Amino acid sequence: MSTDAPGGEAEITVSCLQFEPRIGDLAANRAAGLELIEAVAEAGARLAVLPELSDSGYVFESRAEAFALSGTAAESETIAGWAEAARRHDLHIVGGFCERDGGRLFNSAALVGPDGLIGVYRKTHLWDAENLWFEPGDHGYPVFATPLGRIGALICYDGWFPEAWRLLAMQGADIVCVPTNWVPMPSQPASLPSMSNILCMAAAHSNSFCVAAACRIGTERGQPFIGQSLIVNHEGWPVAGPAPEERPEVLTARVNLADARRKRRLNDFNQLLRDRRTDLYDEMLGTDLTPGWY
Amino acid sequence: MSTDAPGGEAEITVSCLQFEPRIGDLAANRAAGLELIEAVAEAGARLAVLPELSDSGYVFESRAEAFALSGTAAESETIAGWAEAARRHDLHIVGGFCERDGGRLFNSAALVGPDGLIGVYRKTHLWDAENLWFEPGDHGYPVFATPLGRIGALICYDGWFPEAWRLLAMQGADIVCVPTNWVPMPSQPASLPSMSNILCMAAAHSNSFCVAAACRIGTERGQPFIGQSLIVNHEGWPVAGPAPEERPEVLTARVNLADARRKRRLNDFNQLLRDRRTDLYDEMLGTDLTPGWY
Repeated sequence: MSTDAPGGEAEITVSCLQFEPRIGDLAANRAAGLELIEAVAEAGARLAVLPELSDSGYVFESRAEAFALSGTAAESETIAGWAEAARRHDLHIVGGFCERDGGRLFNSAALVGPDGLIGVYRKTHLWDAENLWFEPGDHGYPVFATPLGRIGALICYDGWFPEAWRLLAMQGADIVCVPTNWVPMPSQPASLPSMSNILCMAAAHSNSFCVAAACRIGTERGQPFIGQSLIVNHEGWPVAGPAPEERPEVLTARVNLADARRKRRLNDFNQLLRDRRTDLYDEMLGTDLTPGWY
Repeated sequence: MSTDAPGGEAEITVSCLQFEPRIGDLAANRAAGLELIEAVAEAGARLAVLPELSDSGYVFESRAEAFALSGTAAESETIAGWAEAARRHDLHIVGGFCERDGGRLFNSAALVGPDGLIGVYRKTHLWDAENLWFEPGDHGYPVFATPLGRIGALICYDGWFPEAWRLLAMQGADIVCVPTNWVPMPSQPASLPSMSNILCMAAAHSNSFCVAAACRIGTERGQPFIGQSLIVNHEGWPVAGPAPEERPEVLTARVNLADARRKRRLNDFNQLLRDRRTDLYDEMLGTDLTPGWY
C-alpha cells in the first residue's frame, strides 16, 4: 500500500476497526483497539476509526457504572493511548469514548493526531437509555482542519438526522467519521443494505463527502449489534464493506478527499451545496415541527 | 383489492405510472397518462402518481418550444383531464406538467382530487438545462390536507436535498409523491439500488413518511431515463418496485398513512421528528455554505 504524500492530492488510506468491546473492561478494550490501530498503521492507514464507546462498552446498568468507566478528554487513558500510537505512526484516529466533564457524561468521539488530541464531538442525538447516562452534546458539529483534510464526526443515531450531516458539509467536511454501535432494525429486508448503511450512502451523496463508519459487534447484556462497518466515497458508494455482522473486521480503502471537495459541480448549472434553496429553507429548518402536528 | 374506507385507518392503495412521454406530443402524452389512470383506478387505486413533465416531454430545444407546450394551472388541458378522471373514480392524482404563469414557466406537479385541482408544487431545485426554460419554484414546499391524508410533492433533483424532504415532514406530510425523470448516474454499481432510490428510502426513514416516485423511461433527444419507479413505506423500505429500467410499468402497493403518522415514537425516549436538535440547527441550515469554502 503506498504511503500518502501530505501536500499532494488528498487521497488517503482509511481503516475502520470493527471489534467487540466488553462492558466495563477498560484495559482490555483499550488494548484491543490499540492492537488494531498498530496493524492498520503498519499497513499504511493514515486515518483509523473505532466504534462508539469503544473503551467503556455500551449497555450500562447504572449512572455509577457509566461514571466509573468515564474520563475527561484531557486525562483519558484511552485518548493518551491513541495519541501515543498516532505520534509513532503519523496517524489520525477517531474513536468513541465515554467522556466525563465535571458531573456530566457525554457519548463522545475524539479526534487524535500525531500532536495529540485535536478535538472532541459529543453525540447530539441520544438513543434510548443513553438518555439516562449522558447529556446531549452541547458543542454542535465541529469540523477540524488536519493535514489529511477537514474531518467531522457523528455517532450512531445522529445519522438519522440529515441536518447533522448537512451542518458538517456546510463547514467544509471532506470526510465524516462515524463511531457507531448500530442495532438491528426490526423490518430490515435481507436483500437490501442495512438502513444504517443506506443513511451513510445518502448523506455522502447529498453532501459530497466520504463517510467512514466503524461499528461494534457482539451482544452485550442482551443487546445485539450489527457490525456492517462501511467506507463510502464522496458519491455515496461503498468502497469497502459492509463488514460482516458477527465477526471482527478491519475495513481499509483509499478515499480521495480532493474529489470530495471538488465534486460539487455536476454540470454547467449545478453545484450541489450551492444549489440549496436557503431562501426557502431558512424559515423552518431551525424551528420545531408544526405545533400540534402528528 | 379492497376499497379504502375514508375515515377509517388511513391505509390506501397507491399506484405509480411509469411510461414514456414523447417530447411535444401533448395529446398522446395526456392520453397515455389517462389510460393508465383509468386502469389503476379500476383496480382500486386511490392515489396515482405520474412522471415529471408527463404532458410535454422533457428535453426541450428552445424556450419557444417549452412555452408552446405549457399551460396555466387553471386552464391546463392536462389538469382538466386528470380532474375529470379523479371525479369519476374518487381518485387523487399527482402528476408532472409544464406550467405557465404569465411569462414564466415552472416544472410543476399538480395535485388533483375528485373536486378538481387542489394545489401545485413548483420544482425548487432545477437540473442542468431546466435552468434555461424554467424559473425555480417560488412557493416553497406545500403540504395539502386531503381525505386520504396529507400529501406533499418533490420533483427529481429536489430529492438530493434533505432540507426539502424535511420541510414536508415538518408540515405533517404522510406521503410524498415524486414525479421524476431520473437520469443515469455514471458511477452506479449494478449490485445496489439506484442512488435515486436510496435517497427516497433514506428520506422516508428519516422523516417517517411514505414515498411514491413515478419515473419516465426511454431516451429523448439523446437523454436516457432510468425508470425504477418505487413505492417506499414510512420505515424506508420498498413495498413496490423498483420498476424495470426500460419498460413501462404500473407499480401498486398498499401503504399505511396512519402508521406513517404514528411511527415517530421509536422507544421510551425517542420520537424521530421531536428529537431534532433545533437548538443546534437554527443558526446554519438556512444560511449559505461557509463563505469561501470548497
